[in-house]
Amino acid sequence: MSDDARAFVPGHVTGFFTVDRADDPTKTGSRGGGLALSDGVSVRVEPADETTVELDGERVEMEAVERVLDALRASATVTAETPLPLGAGFGVSGAMALGTALAANAAFDRHLSYNELVTVAHGAEVQAGTGLGDVVGQARGGVPLRLEPGGPRHNYVDAIPARTRVEYHTLGELSTADVVGGDTEALTRAGERALSAVVEEPTLETFTRAARQFSREANLLTESVRSVVEDVTAAGGDAGMAMLGETVFAVGTGLTDAGYDASVCEVYPPGATVEK
Amino acid sequence: MSDDARAFVPGHVTGFFTVDRADDPTKTGSRGGGLALSDGVSVRVEPADETTVELDGERVEMEAVERVLDALRASATVTAETPLPLGAGFGVSGAMALGTALAANAAFDRHLSYNELVTVAHGAEVQAGTGLGDVVGQARGGVPLRLEPGGPRHNYVDAIPARTRVEYHTLGELSTADVVGGDTEALTRAGERALSAVVEEPTLETFTRAARQFSREANLLTESVRSVVEDVTAAGGDAGMAMLGETVFAVGTGLTDAGYDASVCEVYPPGATVEK
Repeated sequence: MSDDARAFVPGHVTGFFTVDRADDPTKTGSRGGGLALSDGVSVRVEPADETTVELDGERVEMEAVERVLDALRASATVTAETPLPLGAGFGVSGAMALGTALAANAAFDRHLSYNELVTVAHGAEVQAGTGLGDVVGQARGGVPLRLEPGGPRHNYVDAIPARTRVEYHTLGELSTADVVGGDTEALTRAGERALSAVVEEPTLETFTRAARQFSREANLLTESVRSVVEDVTAAGGDAGMAMLGETVFAVGTGLTDAGYDASVCEVYPPGATVEK
Repeated sequence: MSDDARAFVPGHVTGFFTVDRADDPTKTGSRGGGLALSDGVSVRVEPADETTVELDGERVEMEAVERVLDALRASATVTAETPLPLGAGFGVSGAMALGTALAANAAFDRHLSYNELVTVAHGAEVQAGTGLGDVVGQARGGVPLRLEPGGPRHNYVDAIPARTRVEYHTLGELSTADVVGGDTEALTRAGERALSAVVEEPTLETFTRAARQFSREANLLTESVRSVVEDVTAAGGDAGMAMLGETVFAVGTGLTDAGYDASVCEVYPPGATVEK
């Protein structure tokens, strides 16, 4: 058994998505588009007799992380740190699952490949009900477009070839499980329209416009998010709602131009990486 | 038409490979494994009436670059800089093709996706006869394992989840076209054996061992490379031959430990990125 190991996983803001269910969790997932962010989650895994999970100094229960460790036949102390808010649409749970997979593979010398670890983390997130596409987007990095759903052996991931400064402003939480656990037919149709528009013209401008339209058509836009997005538009900027949280993201300086005290990061080209 | 745009493409050392030909250049390619390097090629594309290509201050003829610009209906001044030697197994021609595709797409607002640009660059390299797998490895970053050949719509790429310092020492050039243009049946069988070993255990140690074995079995190991690899082994290190060049690469500090004045870089997790 080796010493501890570390991994870094970018945050992931989803702009629009579909829900694609299958019997096999590694075929279940979503199509859609997002931004991988330089603000992410640093995960440290250290072999231990009993598994404990800590995020920013507090003990947390995270089913996806426990499922990942079970799949790798490992028990460990998992310690994670992030500047991102939880439950606000940044894929923190997916990042915890993927970071744990990468770091545990190194710490326990499990000899799995990158895609195998992504598959384990994706399946764990799907089974925990906390996400459908974040892990895949976080494994790709950049501005991922998930054209076919599921884990690496089944999906097809492309990307918008662009980098940009990204700002975000969080107003509150939304439950992914509540939304994707309900009737998702209309949401999926809206997600397909958004994805088609971005595939037709894979630019950041089209991405943000498609995200705005998706949040309205899927009936997920809250009043407070709408108000901030309108402020950014009025100031000449380009913003959308992060799925799934009460979070507004803007490409460039849209939120600060509109007078908000926004967090600032940028598109993060690499996917999740083990630091060892 | 926009201003100029820039892209950075990592160097790519191939450890072992197969030759897989098809009628369609985007299905032609190779399986194999490599290291994407932080030493890479910076490419700048500026719209111009006539296409010229410059590498490290000297005018060069690069068929793959010209094919990429033709595919994007663009003529441009292409200026590239790299610390890597040309023709020595670092995928400089692939990097020039991919960097030109990414930067020209931005400079000319061509609205192609990342995978479409990789496809254009891969097809151009294949048709120019200068490479079969570098572009795909350079698009992935990290330690790419090309499990199925061809461009993005046809291939399947995994990776070894690891980072490391990489050293290299170049003794001379080898012609990719001479090797892959000849009888490649035995080479491909050796490449398949190497890839199987690394898929079985995707670690850097297995990768370097498989690369050494491949260079012997494929009859590509030159006397001078063999001598340097043996020196590294004698010093307790781990080295192999870069395909295709008279270049020795070592993971960690193998070459300096053996007394060589080696160049030093590291595995580069992101794939090629546009800098705009």
